[in-house]
Amino acid sequence: MQSVTEIVVRYAETDRMGIAHHANYLVWFEQARTEYTRKLSCSYSELEKRGLLSPLLSVEVHYLRTCTYEDRLQVICRLVKLSQAQMTFAYTVLREGEEQPICTGVTRHAWVDAETFRPVSLKRRCPELYQELEQLVEPE
Amino acid sequence: MQSVTEIVVRYAETDRMGIAHHANYLVWFEQARTEYTRKLSCSYSELEKRGLLSPLLSVEVHYLRTCTYEDRLQVICRLVKLSQAQMTFAYTVLREGEEQPICTGVTRHAWVDAETFRPVSLKRRCPELYQELEQLVEPE
Amino acid sequence: MQSVTEIVVRYAETDRMGIAHHANYLVWFEQARTEYTRKLSCSYSELEKRGLLSPLLSVEVHYLRTCTYEDRLQVICRLVKLSQAQMTFAYTVLREGEEQPICTGVTRHAWVDAETFRPVSLKRRCPELYQELEQLVEPE
Amino acid sequence: MQSVTEIVVRYAETDRMGIAHHANYLVWFEQARTEYTRKLSCSYSELEKRGLLSPLLSVEVHYLRTCTYEDRLQVICRLVKLSQAQMTFAYTVLREGEEQPICTGVTRHAWVDAETFRPVSLKRRCPELYQELEQLVEPE
Repeated sequence: MQSVTEIVVRYAETDRMGIAHHANYLVWFEQARTEYTRKLSCSYSELEKRGLLSPLLSVEVHYLRTCTYEDRLQVICRLVKLSQAQMTFAYTVLREGEEQPICTGVTRHAWVDAETFRPVSLKRRCPELYQELEQLVEPE
Repeated sequence: MQSVTEIVVRYAETDRMGIAHHANYLVWFEQARTEYTRKLSCSYSELEKRGLLSPLLSVEVHYLRTCTYEDRLQVICRLVKLSQAQMTFAYTVLREGEEQPICTGVTRHAWVDAETFRPVSLKRRCPELYQELEQLVEPE
Repeated sequence: MQSVTEIVVRYAETDRMGIAHHANYLVWFEQARTEYTRKLSCSYSELEKRGLLSPLLSVEVHYLRTCTYEDRLQVICRLVKLSQAQMTFAYTVLREGEEQPICTGVTRHAWVDAETFRPVSLKRRCPELYQELEQLVEPE
Repeated sequence: MQSVTEIVVRYAETDRMGIAHHANYLVWFEQARTEYTRKLSCSYSELEKRGLLSPLLSVEVHYLRTCTYEDRLQVICRLVKLSQAQMTFAYTVLREGEEQPICTGVTRHAWVDAETFRPVSLKRRCPELYQELEQLVEPE
């Protein structure tokens, strides 16, 4: 499964180089994850209500080309790794109508308890969600 | 009392007009409030620990001149109004070494309970802080 | 004429109060203006290409209620004042399915030359756009 | 050579997890690079005036621990690779008074012409700066 998130680059997201500032891609990745989880039986907001958080452990981004204000982007998001304690998403950012990506990236996440911020096993805390995600893992 | 906060404009804060994007001034005002409260007997972090929050009710900003990357700014912050339920801060943003302000602004805040988000009386919840603030109010 | 811009609150836009940080509303207003100008004969990107910029002179925002991650918002944008040198937009932010606004705001803009940042008359530089906008002004 | 940049986490930089949002680290890295280049004979602002830009090619960040509002951070920045066309910086983010880093990261940059966005040789365009940087490269 992959989710496709449409983004129009905001003026505030550009910098004085005239292009979208590189930090925004992390925010767009996050928005893509949100849409990915919205397709699951349990959205990220609902997971938070159940006392689970999924903070970032690491990120890697490759900026291949630039984009700017009013550019229409698609952020493709896929789950590429899953363990009881961690999951990894991969992203491709395309400009509408183009094939060559603007950017690719990977984020790795932990599952932690919302109160203690200590690692938890998703498999134990939400076995159905874990099983659902297991089916969705795609090769990187 | 006034607090003076030093800010160096970040690259990410500029936009493709070549200037600092107008939304950042609200963030700088907030940083200035942080430094203001650090001069009090009770910082904003500590107030949060006591279960108080101070969300924005309104903001007014006048952009008089522009600034850009690496500009060194001073944000002057003063308390200009106080009631049991609300307080108002005024701001002046100057570029180092200049007299004519780049920007002026005013923010109005409520006091609410961190759990319920319902209005609370600062005078009743933190009488000492209220008294301290009362002494600090300056004409707008 | 009014434009209606759909926004889903991003995780990065929340703060540790648990709500969307107040500075983001300025960014959402800007996105709403972008969509407003996209309905005109000449979008903001095209105006920039013609050497015109429209920096903010002032902003006023009233935060009436809060919103948070994954909330679906509508930002309604209308042109409420126009002169040769300035224009003023008014905004209402609603949560989908609700009638009571979350936030209202007003932004006032200058027209300046992209090279010199000096004020210009829109009426003289883009007479057709000026005439078009004149027809669109609505009571505040 | 290393530069040490002091940062106090801003309220706007936190998210509803209660911690500084991960995208801000890229902005702090950038601020650290700014201070690094301020120690050189030619700051980044001056390089831009000479028609050179240094956009990001890739970034890698490892989030080891969290930080939040009012935390005082130090961002240590070092140049760890240099070629005619690219340079790589490494970062360590520490909380004041602590030894165990909160975050480490690496950013890789190209040198491009400000007009064409085409790669340029720093060695040819700014031989003195290139020589200066060569002396500063440290093992990763």
